[in-house]
Amino acid sequence: MDIAILGYGVVGKGVDTIISAQLDSCAVTRILELPDRLSDERMTASFDEIIDDPSIEAVVECMGGVEPAHSLIVRALSAGKHVITSNKAVVAAYFGEFVALADEHGVGFFIEASTGGGIPWIASIEKARRIDAISSFSGIMNGTSNFIIDAMLRDGSDFGEALSRAQELGYAERDPSADLDGIDVKNKTIISASVAFDAQCTHDLPVSGIRTITKADMEAFAAQGCAVKLLGRGVCRDGRYAASVEPVALPVDSLEAHVPANFNLITLVGETIGELKFYGQGAGMLPTGNAIVQDLLDCAAGIRPGYHFGAKLDYDPALLMGDYCFRSHVAPPDAEPSGDGRWLVRNVSAEAARAAFDRVLSEDPGAFMAALS
Amino acid sequence: MDIAILGYGVVGKGVDTIISAQLDSCAVTRILELPDRLSDERMTASFDEIIDDPSIEAVVECMGGVEPAHSLIVRALSAGKHVITSNKAVVAAYFGEFVALADEHGVGFFIEASTGGGIPWIASIEKARRIDAISSFSGIMNGTSNFIIDAMLRDGSDFGEALSRAQELGYAERDPSADLDGIDVKNKTIISASVAFDAQCTHDLPVSGIRTITKADMEAFAAQGCAVKLLGRGVCRDGRYAASVEPVALPVDSLEAHVPANFNLITLVGETIGELKFYGQGAGMLPTGNAIVQDLLDCAAGIRPGYHFGAKLDYDPALLMGDYCFRSHVAPPDAEPSGDGRWLVRNVSAEAARAAFDRVLSEDPGAFMAALS
Repeated sequence: MDIAILGYGVVGKGVDTIISAQLDSCAVTRILELPDRLSDERMTASFDEIIDDPSIEAVVECMGGVEPAHSLIVRALSAGKHVITSNKAVVAAYFGEFVALADEHGVGFFIEASTGGGIPWIASIEKARRIDAISSFSGIMNGTSNFIIDAMLRDGSDFGEALSRAQELGYAERDPSADLDGIDVKNKTIISASVAFDAQCTHDLPVSGIRTITKADMEAFAAQGCAVKLLGRGVCRDGRYAASVEPVALPVDSLEAHVPANFNLITLVGETIGELKFYGQGAGMLPTGNAIVQDLLDCAAGIRPGYHFGAKLDYDPALLMGDYCFRSHVAPPDAEPSGDGRWLVRNVSAEAARAAFDRVLSEDPGAFMAALS
Repeated sequence: MDIAILGYGVVGKGVDTIISAQLDSCAVTRILELPDRLSDERMTASFDEIIDDPSIEAVVECMGGVEPAHSLIVRALSAGKHVITSNKAVVAAYFGEFVALADEHGVGFFIEASTGGGIPWIASIEKARRIDAISSFSGIMNGTSNFIIDAMLRDGSDFGEALSRAQELGYAERDPSADLDGIDVKNKTIISASVAFDAQCTHDLPVSGIRTITKADMEAFAAQGCAVKLLGRGVCRDGRYAASVEPVALPVDSLEAHVPANFNLITLVGETIGELKFYGQGAGMLPTGNAIVQDLLDCAAGIRPGYHFGAKLDYDPALLMGDYCFRSHVAPPDAEPSGDGRWLVRNVSAEAARAAFDRVLSEDPGAFMAALS
């Protein structure tokens, strides 16, 4: 199968490397790049050349970002080419449109690499759904924020030192906002919820990040037998769903509390299978490249993803209720003081907690909030 | 697809339950049972009736044990019926024969449920192998022994109390030897190695269990920052392999150290994918039934397992070397005393360690040995 790669950054190179080293059944014949980066005879700056080439059966999109990725994917699917993408932002924003176009044109739309990097997470949800309804999922889906939290816990680094180390190692971007503020996890949570609950989950989720966490916060949670991790979570019940992204204080004896460095750990819960957890590299050239190549192998074997977004699910924030801990010199609404500048807010939805956090942040931008698991 | 179930114990019932509740594409039309247990009109004590029924395309073997399971599987495959089995003992003993017969008769031989219960372990190894060579695997593959170790750690139970609790809860058999002495894990390790390395791994492995572990052993390891878990491990390099089953002292901050109750956690390492870990229920009616039904769905979709055992691998004990801790009043060969009735044996193969342990046990049947990870 001849394929074209869109974007020759870290992931695009990884796909090219794996295909040329390991695969006889696929060949990368075209690569879309910017006009000033055409360093290889397969490269072109013209997407038309790729679209108009009937020998190219599949397009691997590794550009990142919403545009022009969105329009290129739409054109590729409409031209009857399979699309494989690692781009969580564009999938989260246009998942339903892409799935409908792929169905209309009888091609596959593959997204394993968009969520969980090298972990076979999307495929595992799809496989579990052949038998079980998935009642919930949750997990550590962002390696950068886990690296920072882990470094703060293990070495006693403060947030700034840990972030600098993550940037030196290439785990964090120069502008790390998407990782630190939960945007990356939000996209992955929307994608996971859509696949797990087989519906396009478009509701704007409550999202909080780890940007304001301090060593003192971690010590306070540790004193209560907890470790904080940034989790994406989703739950589905009786035709309704809820999802959230937020720091969660987990028992120190949980597996999640021991996920090191930039690894991910994601859990699904099904009726007959119970709890299944999947752990691995959530990013990186070879793991993400591996996930794309797995999709390519399925595509070449005629296997098509199993999501169709038949159901319409209502969003119901009451499905995700819990207690929250705030650290701030400003009291959140309906909070009980719990000592040392900390507050407990009991039995609120993730949405209500996020709204309370907004009010606190407007007066105290350094405040921190975590759900108590 | 019409199927027959052989054996209507816990697993057979689970398969029947899941198929009738969730699946339109399969029907259980015959069940092989003992003559005095024919409580359902689908039941028969005659395997000929099943073999001679051309409407039955697949046979699900959940009898356990080596015979008559082995001869029934041979007859089913030879009659051109797909076979799905959860029976690790018979697969470990006759894997190569079954794979060859399935290839010869153009049918599938499916074993997901034999190892890791509800965890999609076998399928994940096969999938990883499409791209990567698997260099090693390791994991907690026996829920009963993990339950006992976990109970001893958490509640301070002694071995006998923890075993009784496991038996009360149905996690341990009345004769728990296969679980405690590592035989169950040995079978799963042979199966995992065969699938991971795509060769029939028939060498008699060094196997040690947890029968002699004491609270004092655990406390001594805890003082060194370690927790003991019973692991099956395999490694493959340059056309050679080694495998072992033994208690291993793991760092307390590893994921493995925090696997609770009767759960399993199994790891594979591939060249591009890196480390992948899979966690879930390693046994039980619904998880094991789920794994069998997943195999049935693949079978019905025309998917066939990817192992062919093309390569011939030599066994090389030098691939699994390490340091070992012994607790005994008898000194193992070449051991350094490490205080408190404990001994350290450095840089020996798992086979040499097991041979040393045999010599120690002959004089001190209560001795304990663990590898240091």
